[in-house]
Amino acid sequence: MSSQYPSELETLFRPRAVAVIGASATPGKTGHTILQNILAGGFEGPVYPVNPRGGEIMGRAVVPAVPQLPDGVDVAVVVIPAAMVPDTLMQLGSRGVKYAVVISGGFREAGNDELETRLQQAIKESGVRVVGPNCQGIVSTGAKLCASWPLTSRRGPIAVISQSGTVAAALAGWAEDEGAGVSGVVSLGNRGDVDESDLIAHFAADPGTLAIALYVEGLRDGRKFMEAVRAVRRAGKALFVLRPGRTERGIKAAQSHTKSMAGSYAVFQGVARQVGAVLVPDVISLFDAARTWAFLGGPSNAGLSVVTSSGGSGILAADTAEEHGYRLSDLQSATAAELRTFLPPHCVIGNPLDLTGDADAARFEVAGRIMLRAGETGTLLAIFGDPIPGAAEVAAGLAAGAFESGKQVVCCYIGGGATEKEEVQALRSKGMLVFPTPERAARAMALVHRRS
Amino acid sequence: MSSQYPSELETLFRPRAVAVIGASATPGKTGHTILQNILAGGFEGPVYPVNPRGGEIMGRAVVPAVPQLPDGVDVAVVVIPAAMVPDTLMQLGSRGVKYAVVISGGFREAGNDELETRLQQAIKESGVRVVGPNCQGIVSTGAKLCASWPLTSRRGPIAVISQSGTVAAALAGWAEDEGAGVSGVVSLGNRGDVDESDLIAHFAADPGTLAIALYVEGLRDGRKFMEAVRAVRRAGKALFVLRPGRTERGIKAAQSHTKSMAGSYAVFQGVARQVGAVLVPDVISLFDAARTWAFLGGPSNAGLSVVTSSGGSGILAADTAEEHGYRLSDLQSATAAELRTFLPPHCVIGNPLDLTGDADAARFEVAGRIMLRAGETGTLLAIFGDPIPGAAEVAAGLAAGAFESGKQVVCCYIGGGATEKEEVQALRSKGMLVFPTPERAARAMALVHRRS
Repeated sequence: MSSQYPSELETLFRPRAVAVIGASATPGKTGHTILQNILAGGFEGPVYPVNPRGGEIMGRAVVPAVPQLPDGVDVAVVVIPAAMVPDTLMQLGSRGVKYAVVISGGFREAGNDELETRLQQAIKESGVRVVGPNCQGIVSTGAKLCASWPLTSRRGPIAVISQSGTVAAALAGWAEDEGAGVSGVVSLGNRGDVDESDLIAHFAADPGTLAIALYVEGLRDGRKFMEAVRAVRRAGKALFVLRPGRTERGIKAAQSHTKSMAGSYAVFQGVARQVGAVLVPDVISLFDAARTWAFLGGPSNAGLSVVTSSGGSGILAADTAEEHGYRLSDLQSATAAELRTFLPPHCVIGNPLDLTGDADAARFEVAGRIMLRAGETGTLLAIFGDPIPGAAEVAAGLAAGAFESGKQVVCCYIGGGATEKEEVQALRSKGMLVFPTPERAARAMALVHRRS
Repeated sequence: MSSQYPSELETLFRPRAVAVIGASATPGKTGHTILQNILAGGFEGPVYPVNPRGGEIMGRAVVPAVPQLPDGVDVAVVVIPAAMVPDTLMQLGSRGVKYAVVISGGFREAGNDELETRLQQAIKESGVRVVGPNCQGIVSTGAKLCASWPLTSRRGPIAVISQSGTVAAALAGWAEDEGAGVSGVVSLGNRGDVDESDLIAHFAADPGTLAIALYVEGLRDGRKFMEAVRAVRRAGKALFVLRPGRTERGIKAAQSHTKSMAGSYAVFQGVARQVGAVLVPDVISLFDAARTWAFLGGPSNAGLSVVTSSGGSGILAADTAEEHGYRLSDLQSATAAELRTFLPPHCVIGNPLDLTGDADAARFEVAGRIMLRAGETGTLLAIFGDPIPGAAEVAAGLAAGAFESGKQVVCCYIGGGATEKEEVQALRSKGMLVFPTPERAARAMALVHRRS
């Protein structure tokens, strides 16, 4: 892979001006939604709607044809009938446009191989680099550019790359819900040109990205992928991959979807392991793992310690962490002795440390401080099973102290109803990462600490 | 197991009158919360606070001592220091009280084996049957009785039995969040007397219960358990079990928690398989499986068909269903031909059936009707990846038609943000069961259809 790719793609994510080819005045049409989201997202450069009907859309003068576009358009979002795309690419190239994000479908995925071939020729001849076709667009929060849907604007350290537009949008939506945000979102579509490895390499170099979440049904180029992942690891970042097709039925479905299944799951596992891409089992753990890595900034140097007021939740966390290859740290006898000195006798000293159902915030604080001071603890998982007045303040205090000593604190609140919403909100407002079940917390921690 | 147990426990869930031994006027104290929730829950029989201080609590005259309780108290909730519990049980027996729900902790779980032995003697001599000690109480929505926390009052077809009070409360809370509700919730605590099998047998016979969710760290009596589960199956109901201790670390933690770990996970698996209890891997699938069975009323007679506007989501569902032992139905050629006739050519005909990103409600309706009419479809999973106007009405229409022909429809909306909340709300308001990810939907369907 050429080393210029990251800098070349830089312009895709930070264009001077943007055009929407096929912008529409009709609500509900994709050419309307895209223009609306680019404007609502607050993109600060010029935005040109292009449509042969001319006139005005959303208060902007419509450019009637591509050749009449002003200078400086780096990215064109293309939302026109598939048959018109190859010629339009040639015109875009003539106007000096560097990237086309082709939303239009109707190519290979619809059985139209001949049109896909014409598209390939146009890409080569025009010099325009293409994202898509048949994709859901791109988001670059650093440039306040949302050329996709739904509207995604919160800036954050997670990059999302996906062969499924829905999976991309879901991850972006969950990140927004948690106040985490994304650096970029790219829907790959048919990967007519720009592929997962180009984007992985870009986000490896992007200073706004800490973790990359990838949904891919098959690699375009295994060697290029391995090189890109190595760049991610060298940059101290992580790539988490959801790759379906683990079963006969899943393989069949994937082959119908993007016709891109390359090799067996076992082969993909081997490739991922070799370069340090972390495979995840489902879409929610793809989000959780990327979110957790981005929040923590990477793995800690020692093991997981669990402090909880719910004995059962502690056991569920222990089972899950261990099943995913991340062992709970062994409680040292000095730590145990200190805990015994400061905690009531009915607490169950161990890891998980069960403070029992009558635990208050003060008990969590004492236990958390001792556990965090202990050499065997790298990350502390605090699991709350009941609303505890002051818990959010205590968790935030522990996290601040932990940060200074290179350690980490994450939380889980297991419950439901209005109480859960209030407690989770309180913890989040103090900057804490909060999981809804012990298993999701433990699995995310295990994925972040997976070395292979 | 004596056949009278179900009728005997009936009174625990439908008492004439209830007493709270250790009722407190101080907010935050358990003896305050319990009384408050019994009153707020709307229990219609007499409720007697008992406290030597006398006076009034929450507008009720306080009975100063157990011997002064009026006649007709079937259930006493006990929230007093552990050392006083055995004598109090004897007094309760003298007053004809049939059940004591002992919230108080400080027995075996706190290393106080001698007090647990005295409690055992008191249970035998008093004739009072005991739930707990060291438990989080019981809920019986059919009697509007919430002798637990948080306040749980919505009536529904799921029964929850748990050795972890937090897990019990979490399941009840999630059921409340989804508008599903519970028939009963029982926190087992130390299982000094009433155990999981007594309760399973009760809920097997309870006409308000369709599915039972059990969290248990070890069985009290394997033979009794097997007999109780057989009664569940005979009644056409299902028992789902989360049993931690799958790993070395989990076993160790469970042994510290309730000292009740009996045998290995493999042995437990064998027992469960033999009688048809369905093991689940984590707490959210314990909820999902019980909720889904209760919603559907049981498994369908044919396979799973998936209809989606998101190709990626369909693959994720296919992989997960198959990994959990539930195969997607094989699309018959007649069904495929009919789909081809009525759907646009770019749709990917198969199972999963990919209607592609431009699918509207009408396309979902056409596809759903054809899939549901097909003999190979037992359950239809409709996965929405974007807000689709009219989707909720279409899903409800398909579900109504499916119900008449003994088939089932469940939904998934994958996304995030305000849009997700609106779409899920719209689907739920039409009575649909909605999952947040394809994998949770597919796994729940697989668990409901697991035969062993």
